[in-house]
Amino acid sequence: MSLDTSLRDAIAADLAETVSDYEDFHRSPELSMQETQTAATIAAKLQGLGLDTHAFGGTGIVAVIENGQGPVVAYRADTDGLPIAEDTGYDYASAAEGTLPDGSTTKVMHGCGHDTHITVGLSLARYLVDHKDLWQGTVVMIFQPGEETGEGARAMLDDGLWDSIARPEVVYGQHVWPGRAGHIYVAKGTAMAMSDCLKVTVTGKQAHGSQPENSVDPIVLGAYMITRLQSIVSREISGREMAVVTVGTFHGGLKENIIPDSAEFKLNIRTFNEEVRAVVLDRIERIIVAEAQASGAPEPMIEEMYRFPRCYNDPATTDRLLEVFGAELGEDQVHLDQPVTGSEDFGAFGDDIDVPYVYWFFGGYSPAKFDGDEPPAGNHSPFFAPDDVETTLETGIRAALTAVLSSVGK
Amino acid sequence: MSLDTSLRDAIAADLAETVSDYEDFHRSPELSMQETQTAATIAAKLQGLGLDTHAFGGTGIVAVIENGQGPVVAYRADTDGLPIAEDTGYDYASAAEGTLPDGSTTKVMHGCGHDTHITVGLSLARYLVDHKDLWQGTVVMIFQPGEETGEGARAMLDDGLWDSIARPEVVYGQHVWPGRAGHIYVAKGTAMAMSDCLKVTVTGKQAHGSQPENSVDPIVLGAYMITRLQSIVSREISGREMAVVTVGTFHGGLKENIIPDSAEFKLNIRTFNEEVRAVVLDRIERIIVAEAQASGAPEPMIEEMYRFPRCYNDPATTDRLLEVFGAELGEDQVHLDQPVTGSEDFGAFGDDIDVPYVYWFFGGYSPAKFDGDEPPAGNHSPFFAPDDVETTLETGIRAALTAVLSSVGK
Amino acid sequence: MSLDTSLRDAIAADLAETVSDYEDFHRSPELSMQETQTAATIAAKLQGLGLDTHAFGGTGIVAVIENGQGPVVAYRADTDGLPIAEDTGYDYASAAEGTLPDGSTTKVMHGCGHDTHITVGLSLARYLVDHKDLWQGTVVMIFQPGEETGEGARAMLDDGLWDSIARPEVVYGQHVWPGRAGHIYVAKGTAMAMSDCLKVTVTGKQAHGSQPENSVDPIVLGAYMITRLQSIVSREISGREMAVVTVGTFHGGLKENIIPDSAEFKLNIRTFNEEVRAVVLDRIERIIVAEAQASGAPEPMIEEMYRFPRCYNDPATTDRLLEVFGAELGEDQVHLDQPVTGSEDFGAFGDDIDVPYVYWFFGGYSPAKFDGDEPPAGNHSPFFAPDDVETTLETGIRAALTAVLSSVGK
Amino acid sequence: MSLDTSLRDAIAADLAETVSDYEDFHRSPELSMQETQTAATIAAKLQGLGLDTHAFGGTGIVAVIENGQGPVVAYRADTDGLPIAEDTGYDYASAAEGTLPDGSTTKVMHGCGHDTHITVGLSLARYLVDHKDLWQGTVVMIFQPGEETGEGARAMLDDGLWDSIARPEVVYGQHVWPGRAGHIYVAKGTAMAMSDCLKVTVTGKQAHGSQPENSVDPIVLGAYMITRLQSIVSREISGREMAVVTVGTFHGGLKENIIPDSAEFKLNIRTFNEEVRAVVLDRIERIIVAEAQASGAPEPMIEEMYRFPRCYNDPATTDRLLEVFGAELGEDQVHLDQPVTGSEDFGAFGDDIDVPYVYWFFGGYSPAKFDGDEPPAGNHSPFFAPDDVETTLETGIRAALTAVLSSVGK
Repeated sequence: MSLDTSLRDAIAADLAETVSDYEDFHRSPELSMQETQTAATIAAKLQGLGLDTHAFGGTGIVAVIENGQGPVVAYRADTDGLPIAEDTGYDYASAAEGTLPDGSTTKVMHGCGHDTHITVGLSLARYLVDHKDLWQGTVVMIFQPGEETGEGARAMLDDGLWDSIARPEVVYGQHVWPGRAGHIYVAKGTAMAMSDCLKVTVTGKQAHGSQPENSVDPIVLGAYMITRLQSIVSREISGREMAVVTVGTFHGGLKENIIPDSAEFKLNIRTFNEEVRAVVLDRIERIIVAEAQASGAPEPMIEEMYRFPRCYNDPATTDRLLEVFGAELGEDQVHLDQPVTGSEDFGAFGDDIDVPYVYWFFGGYSPAKFDGDEPPAGNHSPFFAPDDVETTLETGIRAALTAVLSSVGK
Repeated sequence: MSLDTSLRDAIAADLAETVSDYEDFHRSPELSMQETQTAATIAAKLQGLGLDTHAFGGTGIVAVIENGQGPVVAYRADTDGLPIAEDTGYDYASAAEGTLPDGSTTKVMHGCGHDTHITVGLSLARYLVDHKDLWQGTVVMIFQPGEETGEGARAMLDDGLWDSIARPEVVYGQHVWPGRAGHIYVAKGTAMAMSDCLKVTVTGKQAHGSQPENSVDPIVLGAYMITRLQSIVSREISGREMAVVTVGTFHGGLKENIIPDSAEFKLNIRTFNEEVRAVVLDRIERIIVAEAQASGAPEPMIEEMYRFPRCYNDPATTDRLLEVFGAELGEDQVHLDQPVTGSEDFGAFGDDIDVPYVYWFFGGYSPAKFDGDEPPAGNHSPFFAPDDVETTLETGIRAALTAVLSSVGK
Repeated sequence: MSLDTSLRDAIAADLAETVSDYEDFHRSPELSMQETQTAATIAAKLQGLGLDTHAFGGTGIVAVIENGQGPVVAYRADTDGLPIAEDTGYDYASAAEGTLPDGSTTKVMHGCGHDTHITVGLSLARYLVDHKDLWQGTVVMIFQPGEETGEGARAMLDDGLWDSIARPEVVYGQHVWPGRAGHIYVAKGTAMAMSDCLKVTVTGKQAHGSQPENSVDPIVLGAYMITRLQSIVSREISGREMAVVTVGTFHGGLKENIIPDSAEFKLNIRTFNEEVRAVVLDRIERIIVAEAQASGAPEPMIEEMYRFPRCYNDPATTDRLLEVFGAELGEDQVHLDQPVTGSEDFGAFGDDIDVPYVYWFFGGYSPAKFDGDEPPAGNHSPFFAPDDVETTLETGIRAALTAVLSSVGK
Repeated sequence: MSLDTSLRDAIAADLAETVSDYEDFHRSPELSMQETQTAATIAAKLQGLGLDTHAFGGTGIVAVIENGQGPVVAYRADTDGLPIAEDTGYDYASAAEGTLPDGSTTKVMHGCGHDTHITVGLSLARYLVDHKDLWQGTVVMIFQPGEETGEGARAMLDDGLWDSIARPEVVYGQHVWPGRAGHIYVAKGTAMAMSDCLKVTVTGKQAHGSQPENSVDPIVLGAYMITRLQSIVSREISGREMAVVTVGTFHGGLKENIIPDSAEFKLNIRTFNEEVRAVVLDRIERIIVAEAQASGAPEPMIEEMYRFPRCYNDPATTDRLLEVFGAELGEDQVHLDQPVTGSEDFGAFGDDIDVPYVYWFFGGYSPAKFDGDEPPAGNHSPFFAPDDVETTLETGIRAALTAVLSSVGK
């Protein structure tokens, strides 16, 4: 059940080149739904393998590797970077810049490790093409843009992905995280949190900074809202349930001596189940509406920006993968884990056509880092990047091949 | 003690042209310390009267009208607009744009009425030049930039104003406000609030939006700070003292699912005396430092951005002006008023050379507006502009002439 | 216009006895509307002067001193103590106890100096009786209970005071405070704040302390209400207006591991005019109702406990008193002062029958205390009591006699 | 492995009498550590079975049932009521009153169902005495006072329980809760939360209600503390960890127009593990200390009132009980459950002598109530009491016998 020696040898032999590819991607992150250069590079490399590539949802790239009769499986990698100024100090650190939807400029970083995902996905395609003797069937390679904004999977699906591309019977995907390099972590059932994103526009009444009595102060109102929102997790949800309510942005006011006429903040909400999600969303609305009333302000506008769906690992498929990962990587390297509070739009590829899927994590840190004095940086930190790149990528490639070949291997 | 008939006739005869000049200035506001076009227009008009003009502090313009032996007096008008999108609906409303120090673009409006100040100042110069028979001495005309940011008076003074220009024995100035057109309002002693402006940079620790436990959340911290700051005015200052603590801006976060590593807010503080000011500033620091400790955050950076000095109307001079204003405009049109909570850097022109000064207000609204169903818009509102422009300007010009001639008139 | 030498001599000769009386009253304070022993002592002393006494409103005592044809004036002293544990350290400090309306026991202290008011009132009566040669007319001596709770004046008036007792043409009263002993302080017009007292009952839903999700937590709700109420004074009222919103009590919960089903707090509001008062009361209700909605709680019950009326010193009478006080005590000892934020029900005695009244303050501290390193304790502090008792009482008596005789003196 | 028919028959035959005993206990609750009457009744009933009784920790009662050679096991029931006014409407509802440590009077209710625990414990003793043919060994019956305050187990242990009474090899105990009558619920490993209780005394500075500027307001300070404490659970602890921070009481102020000099609140904290507990306690202290600094108040006093230890069900013993409970009650009636957020001092009986223990729950509600429109009342609610008393008690007795006989049964 473990990988053929020829594959392991190839992975090892190519590792320096693979790391070099990774560093190139790391240097050149692009913001969500703007991954034009990244998509072009991916398409070129896939075409170099003799594959046709198809664009979906703008910057999404798909290649289908056909190899005779047999099961159809899909493997998905995501490709976008984040508006973070990298602070890792690596010599291949990013100095890239990008333009946010509001027109402002920002530094861009592969702060969530999607560069490893692209690299691993391309390696997977390469080995599947090079070793057709070892398997039979069809593998759909999906390079998805815009995961960070929850737009990408939806964009590809709405662009007709499963109407024109062979539908798989199972979908696989994986994510790097601050675990031990060489290790795999997977949850059974609920694997990642649902995520809701709301934009709240608070309307006040402008006045001179010296005359608050003539204003409805939207900054003070917003501050009271945010302190009040803390009571949802602390008082409205059982301590045994998972709920996170983050106010990730707050913006109001142009000049210190003018009380502005509005302010805006954005919420990110994480929950593991629909009941808790419904309570959290209800309480957010209740608090925002009531706080506006307390200020004599108009009812604020609450807009849903996007929603990350569930990511529910099919239990039977998860059990099967736990077994084959253990056989390939060693049982001690494979961990059945709790669900994580992060979110993903990966699940949509399976849920949209009602086929099972599994999403797992692979670690990125050497023992020196992982067991160091302070916990290693997590995803979305300006310090996040694997320090043991070789082991990280090698493990990701072996896990991807193991999963895919567990479905289509001979 | 009232104005000579020849002056009154001239003002009335020129009124249509004066209003037209006002509308031109109203259409073309410029942001603080960027008043290059405005300054050029002012200088051209003064030169058209045969006066030499001198630049101080960049966009500040000074002209000295000499007319033989006699007292030296100064009259100051300020010239800058505000980053507000005008919403008055007047056909001469501003559509101007400007660039803020942070590089962002904004609409610009004469939202504090400095266009009336320029217009009145130019008329004053004109009539003083045209009617030298009525007075004797020297009048220093000061057109000051950057009043809104508290930079302009300081910039002109630091540029050597009183080193190269004749020092006055008294300084006059006035401001339009939402009072009755045709009326003058003046306080004796403390006339306007001191104003302090602070910038607070809150440092947190960045993390993924789903993992607040790995962050120090600067937005939640900022919100607690802002709600806590409310207790200064409500609990730390006597109800009989004036204190206003406004948080005019609050900005943090780029993306809803990243807890940012910092947030920033700006405070504007108004007080009437040094004792209260000291308590307010002390409490602001105490609260900001302690709240950061409550979050386990580093000590925030608190920077003084600028400070508006006192504006203390010399009591004897104020009494004299009350008398001559009453004689010129009618006693019922002249009001001894309370100090206002707004601030000004006008006082620096006198305080720097230790000479007395008086600053008064002239109203901008017709009875229909002033006594309407809702209170008329105040300064810094997108709706603020005189509706009875003719009376407003005429009154401003007569008050300016009355004050100046009370010192240098024959 | 100053006091006859015979009066001054008598005051001086009696001073040791007067101080002794004061110490007795200081040792034996009683809570509001429970001043039975105090009332009995007052009545006995008045009867000892040969006067008839009349009870109004339970523990209120009135005596009428008639002395022929002439004006009728009234003088009022209040008599109740406070639920404070005295901490002055004087050997005549109070160890008294009392029972609050809720049945609980408390230490009681003359923490607002009403013991000086009683003592001065009794001395005034004594000298008026002993020196009938110096005046002509009628003086109504009012010893009012329950000033601290705002009940006493209303209780006496509702009990028919002015129906059965000669109506005065002017009412006088005075209060000791932390000013200089020997000095008098009086405001013209608005003399003291209006005071409103509200009781708020917050209804939540009880649950086990480990299960906040099954509760509506009234303590957390109350805390958010109280922090939100701070924004009224800080944001809704002009910095130039006086408004104080104090939450003087907050009580909820019996056991730390039970989230209670209700909590209660009491508000005390001070304002100088009806417009500001109306805004403050409106905002309090708005905030309390909205915060309950934010928690999904029922609408809280807001009850008016009592209201202290205005205390508006008749301007003409105030001018007259300033003159006679200056003549008697020295001009430097008499101060025209700002209105104070404290409240009084004294004004009702005049307002109910539409006659003028004046209420002034007399100081209680020696120079050593008044000019000491830290400000002397104020009224309602456990440390408040005159340290120069002799000068304090002597000044109070002279001021009372001066005022009364300015109306009825020969 | 199920109970002998003779036992089941006896339980059924006695049920009316058992229910009657329960109702008597329900009518007569006593507050923690004051259970003198309850203890006397328990002791009398045990003595009626021919057992000697021993008092430990004041109102704790122990009886040892000896029955030849064999294992020693202990069974514990707790006996105290709560300061809650019962609102169940049952005709056997409590009207009892009690006196709290602070001297105030309160209604008392068996609001946590300890009356069922006493009743079941006494029945267990009775059947063990009556059916000695069915078992062999020693059973220690513990009737513990003061569970609600965390004092009782500690008091009995500190009074030398295990020095003078036979030490068991396993300890059993159970608790009624709002589950289905007839059902048993048990967690493996962590069974209940740790609980910490803190008392916080906030010191301010007293002043008249109209002069907040002379005070340090401990009620406003307390309110800011409580709103700030909400951020611990919402921001400092992972959404996947259990933490509850409840402020169960807040008391400050005696009179609405005096800002008091102190306020006091009590915290109840629930956590499942030591790491989270340490973070929560650290953050509580950090916030309380910093908020006091923000107010310029002295450092508040934070006192540990008591701590409930862990309650960790021995996994092997739990597995064994799950099996025998399933055999006796039906597999569908026995549930392996999550840990609960409530706390218990039961675990101390085992942890103190390092022997395993298991603590389980039995339901109290009929299907009509359990599946009704709204969730049935939980423990510590004024509405909490089993509605199907017969099934509840019968199930509790059968579970207790099953557990005990699984250790000592023949």
